[in-house]
Amino acid sequence: MTVRAAVAGASGYAGGEVLRLLLGHPEVEIGALTGHSNAGQRLGGLQPHLVPLADRELQPTSAEVLAGHDVVFLALPHGQSAAVAEELGPEVLVVDCGADFRLGDAADWEAFYGSPHAGTWPYGLPELPGKRAALQGTRRIAVPGCYPTAVSLALFPAYADRLAEPEAVIVAATGTSGAGKALKPHLLGSEVMGSMSPYGVGGGHRHTPEMIQNLSAVAGERISVSFTPTLAPMSRGILATCSAKAKPGVDAAAVRAAYEKALAGEPFLRLLPEGQWPSTAAVYGSNTAQIQVTLDAAAGRIIAISALDNLTKGTAGGAVQSMNIALGLPEETGLSRVGVAP
Amino acid sequence: MTVRAAVAGASGYAGGEVLRLLLGHPEVEIGALTGHSNAGQRLGGLQPHLVPLADRELQPTSAEVLAGHDVVFLALPHGQSAAVAEELGPEVLVVDCGADFRLGDAADWEAFYGSPHAGTWPYGLPELPGKRAALQGTRRIAVPGCYPTAVSLALFPAYADRLAEPEAVIVAATGTSGAGKALKPHLLGSEVMGSMSPYGVGGGHRHTPEMIQNLSAVAGERISVSFTPTLAPMSRGILATCSAKAKPGVDAAAVRAAYEKALAGEPFLRLLPEGQWPSTAAVYGSNTAQIQVTLDAAAGRIIAISALDNLTKGTAGGAVQSMNIALGLPEETGLSRVGVAP
Amino acid sequence: MTVRAAVAGASGYAGGEVLRLLLGHPEVEIGALTGHSNAGQRLGGLQPHLVPLADRELQPTSAEVLAGHDVVFLALPHGQSAAVAEELGPEVLVVDCGADFRLGDAADWEAFYGSPHAGTWPYGLPELPGKRAALQGTRRIAVPGCYPTAVSLALFPAYADRLAEPEAVIVAATGTSGAGKALKPHLLGSEVMGSMSPYGVGGGHRHTPEMIQNLSAVAGERISVSFTPTLAPMSRGILATCSAKAKPGVDAAAVRAAYEKALAGEPFLRLLPEGQWPSTAAVYGSNTAQIQVTLDAAAGRIIAISALDNLTKGTAGGAVQSMNIALGLPEETGLSRVGVAP
Amino acid sequence: MTVRAAVAGASGYAGGEVLRLLLGHPEVEIGALTGHSNAGQRLGGLQPHLVPLADRELQPTSAEVLAGHDVVFLALPHGQSAAVAEELGPEVLVVDCGADFRLGDAADWEAFYGSPHAGTWPYGLPELPGKRAALQGTRRIAVPGCYPTAVSLALFPAYADRLAEPEAVIVAATGTSGAGKALKPHLLGSEVMGSMSPYGVGGGHRHTPEMIQNLSAVAGERISVSFTPTLAPMSRGILATCSAKAKPGVDAAAVRAAYEKALAGEPFLRLLPEGQWPSTAAVYGSNTAQIQVTLDAAAGRIIAISALDNLTKGTAGGAVQSMNIALGLPEETGLSRVGVAP
Repeated sequence: MTVRAAVAGASGYAGGEVLRLLLGHPEVEIGALTGHSNAGQRLGGLQPHLVPLADRELQPTSAEVLAGHDVVFLALPHGQSAAVAEELGPEVLVVDCGADFRLGDAADWEAFYGSPHAGTWPYGLPELPGKRAALQGTRRIAVPGCYPTAVSLALFPAYADRLAEPEAVIVAATGTSGAGKALKPHLLGSEVMGSMSPYGVGGGHRHTPEMIQNLSAVAGERISVSFTPTLAPMSRGILATCSAKAKPGVDAAAVRAAYEKALAGEPFLRLLPEGQWPSTAAVYGSNTAQIQVTLDAAAGRIIAISALDNLTKGTAGGAVQSMNIALGLPEETGLSRVGVAP
Repeated sequence: MTVRAAVAGASGYAGGEVLRLLLGHPEVEIGALTGHSNAGQRLGGLQPHLVPLADRELQPTSAEVLAGHDVVFLALPHGQSAAVAEELGPEVLVVDCGADFRLGDAADWEAFYGSPHAGTWPYGLPELPGKRAALQGTRRIAVPGCYPTAVSLALFPAYADRLAEPEAVIVAATGTSGAGKALKPHLLGSEVMGSMSPYGVGGGHRHTPEMIQNLSAVAGERISVSFTPTLAPMSRGILATCSAKAKPGVDAAAVRAAYEKALAGEPFLRLLPEGQWPSTAAVYGSNTAQIQVTLDAAAGRIIAISALDNLTKGTAGGAVQSMNIALGLPEETGLSRVGVAP
Repeated sequence: MTVRAAVAGASGYAGGEVLRLLLGHPEVEIGALTGHSNAGQRLGGLQPHLVPLADRELQPTSAEVLAGHDVVFLALPHGQSAAVAEELGPEVLVVDCGADFRLGDAADWEAFYGSPHAGTWPYGLPELPGKRAALQGTRRIAVPGCYPTAVSLALFPAYADRLAEPEAVIVAATGTSGAGKALKPHLLGSEVMGSMSPYGVGGGHRHTPEMIQNLSAVAGERISVSFTPTLAPMSRGILATCSAKAKPGVDAAAVRAAYEKALAGEPFLRLLPEGQWPSTAAVYGSNTAQIQVTLDAAAGRIIAISALDNLTKGTAGGAVQSMNIALGLPEETGLSRVGVAP
Repeated sequence: MTVRAAVAGASGYAGGEVLRLLLGHPEVEIGALTGHSNAGQRLGGLQPHLVPLADRELQPTSAEVLAGHDVVFLALPHGQSAAVAEELGPEVLVVDCGADFRLGDAADWEAFYGSPHAGTWPYGLPELPGKRAALQGTRRIAVPGCYPTAVSLALFPAYADRLAEPEAVIVAATGTSGAGKALKPHLLGSEVMGSMSPYGVGGGHRHTPEMIQNLSAVAGERISVSFTPTLAPMSRGILATCSAKAKPGVDAAAVRAAYEKALAGEPFLRLLPEGQWPSTAAVYGSNTAQIQVTLDAAAGRIIAISALDNLTKGTAGGAVQSMNIALGLPEETGLSRVGVAP
């Protein structure tokens, strides 16, 4: 099979990572690349690491340019995907790396994004219960947010086995690429290096309802989430420290068993041996999420921690993995479980 | 007044930071400097930033060498301070940057440090209720741990006003200097840069009982603490994200008021204007702890975040601040509220 | 003496560093602070490390605002200083952190900056032969560029003693704060971290003629300079690796002697003991330049390396040092030789 | 073809990178993995990014363990390769990532390494004139040093066309992984982050004679090299800034033409478009060396700059590339030209 793929938003970090992975995907041929303010420029000046595409010229993002491909990856600002997708026709596989189609609840969308809800597409996190099946054969995929991916993978085993109380407390650190290429003062290297800082504290981060949605679906009850994201002095990676009170009677063995069961057979989830904890360095550039869990008996809490690459498993790798499922390709095609370290 | 000060453990990070501050302290004259494996070496090769002391030779750590000073700072491995202090006599001000005398409960000490409890000294965190008075005139000071400093300062206003339930959840990121100069593989630059990783997860970190001690004393009830430390790719700084469920009926105004009241007049605590959050970069090299708090109404939690420099306010700055109080000097002498940024 | 000082451009990195130093200067009272696009904002949101000035409001940069001060520091974009200075009157000490008045040769200025030459002011690098005397009593100071400071300090001893051939080859690494707060894509943290990259290669960097000017004046002959700046993944610091062929017959002892003689007695220059090399970490936040030199006998070249903090000794510290000289204050007032490390 | 490969020194950075690449090599099956102090441990705790090999146990490095493979990669400390290689027999392809067999001149070896010269093997830098042919069918490969790779690739076109005078001046920055996993104080994260520092200044670095050997062979005359390595705050990457005086009459067009000619058709060398300069971020984890050159007319020097990943093209990637040639596989097999960025 040769799949012809276009990427809209090829000059950004998400689009660039999609392209990095597609360049190593044996079944994909890269077609149109589009940009907005960068249309007309060659990709080599914008994404100098994508050597084989250096001479490709960015075209404007339009239905004409994107037509004629089997798959179209959208790496656009929030709110722009619906219009593009509509024009592409139902037979084209549209993989949206943006937020537009992630949430099932229109009220949540409107509360957090401030615009009308565009709809809900099959959710590209195949490791969550029921999601893999829904992706098979689909022609529309909503790629999850990077934080919801990290948090959902860390906590779903605990909630699937009803081990945890319905109040999760999450503090996550992200590399700066999670904020994209927007030119904002606090993202300057001079500001970021040597500094940890929080943002979106107190429930305001847009990924919060997505976490609640995912965990609640698994738990069969409404899970409240206290989510504090922090910006770390690194380019890539998310470390999500997630905890919830253990339900009465839950012991360490039950916790371990739940995680072993839930993660078994998942090619891109790695439950570490007991005593070893994840690090973002170990998953750099890979599609693996490393996960560890323990029970803090004194505090009565389950602590689950995941590490993943926000651009790979957290965005573009998850997108390619879901594309593989949708197209009937082996799920691991073109994706590596191996990080680039040190 | 001229205070003659010695520093035991002058080749390490804590000892080096004590010396950096003492070099700028108008009332202090620096006397003996000691080391262990580095005895006999000049300081310039070990601490090249301490230019005025470059030609000073490290002596072995012994009572003879440390005798004859008004103040002795101990920056030694845990468990070594008691023997040295005993020989120094009661009229010498001994400021212990180690853990030996921080805990009031011998059982806690033995459980977490695995050795007999040496005792309890006045606790060098003057901003906590009652602590400043206890430091006045003392000749023994236990300098708090860096994490307990950050966490206690972030949460004591909430507990002092009985606003929070007695279960605190804390995730903190530290710069690598918090781990000292020990040669361990996971502290190599190649491992640390670009990586976030947790350690001591699940209640095992030795700073946990110290946090419980401090918060419980303020709250008047036992506070349980779930503490997860993480190692961040930076040399200095702690960002502590602390939360607890708000007690019923607590609103945002009450939270704000509690913090304004508790931090008022404290020279080294800065409650940021609403909407502005701390960053470790802003306190680099300074003795300031920047603090912000909010109420997450949806999750029902108070979120308090502090940023400080683990070596300054978290260790050596707190030590000098407490020394000033003990000696009757103005508390701010030789300490800066201004960070080195960017 | 109380000196009342204003800072124009207080929201930038150079202006912020001037303020950091002035806050610790015992003879200075900080007056007006001005900004351009940030006028009307409080400094605390822009420079959160400058705690004591957090509530100060930025005023627009104008002669009215800046009038009535003893000293005015200009930290403005190139080309804006002359107009401001002219309005301030000859009795006010104007310290220009910009490039406008550094070059003695109008043709050099016009070739590299593309605008008419505004003039030449006493050059604020007192360690160079003759410069200290010229600064005494002056009311106009041109603060040197950060790279020319690092390079001139590394090489002037060799040229003063006629030890080196007149062709210098320089490769320097700078922290990102050297590029200022301008919002440019290549300065984003995501781009900078983990990356070394050159810029201005081949003779085009504007600091090149300033290096040539300084070294030629010392050498008494025209020195050609090949200068390659590189951007390093750190916020602060310059490491300048400078070399030139040794003149015939020059040996290692002559080189060492020249540096010992030239740097003797200079409070802010530190010639390291033989075998120890500078690092930017050791001078972080300090006004010290650390210097080392050797003779590579096989290649026949003198290699001199300096490390300094581009914002301190390389800009604001040099500015304050020169101000002290101009005002007749002890040269070290308010400046530290001690770095913040690790 | 299925090639069975063993890796001696699998717990180090070079060995880890060889394994990372072999895991993606379609013709290789990974056999024995050996370590020294880590023998008996599972690889997952030492190289957590190599997920598919996590359960593999390290064996001691011995001829028995390494026997029975088609290829043996040696990633051992200098001086240990000869004894191992001798026992492996002439039909096994031995790829030595160490220095032992790189130099053709025994006196050079003895002067810089202080031990008897073990011999000279075909040199694994196929892009240099004559080297690719010598690698075909060989059963012994000396993998070049990381710095000599970066420097030779940057300068060989200039010397091949006799454009440059025989005195090269080189300043290179390396990521810390270039220093390996040895536990040395100056390699701690606390020391490295935020710091640039030189080492081995003045001609003493062991890679110097290797650069001289390579450039002299290309130039047909003895090239002297002044080489200053610096340690940069990043895990990976080398940026080599190389210059030499242009021979009389050489102009920019001749320089450009020489580089275009020399780099044409090389899969892993990328001469950037004029005006674009290399960065180490763009080659992170890839086998590409990005190169740019210009003529500084004022200084009369050719400035050539290369960026590569010290562990990939600078070590393990070069090793695999040379293995491919030796075995008759397509040279690009298992190697990517695409970097992981940002």
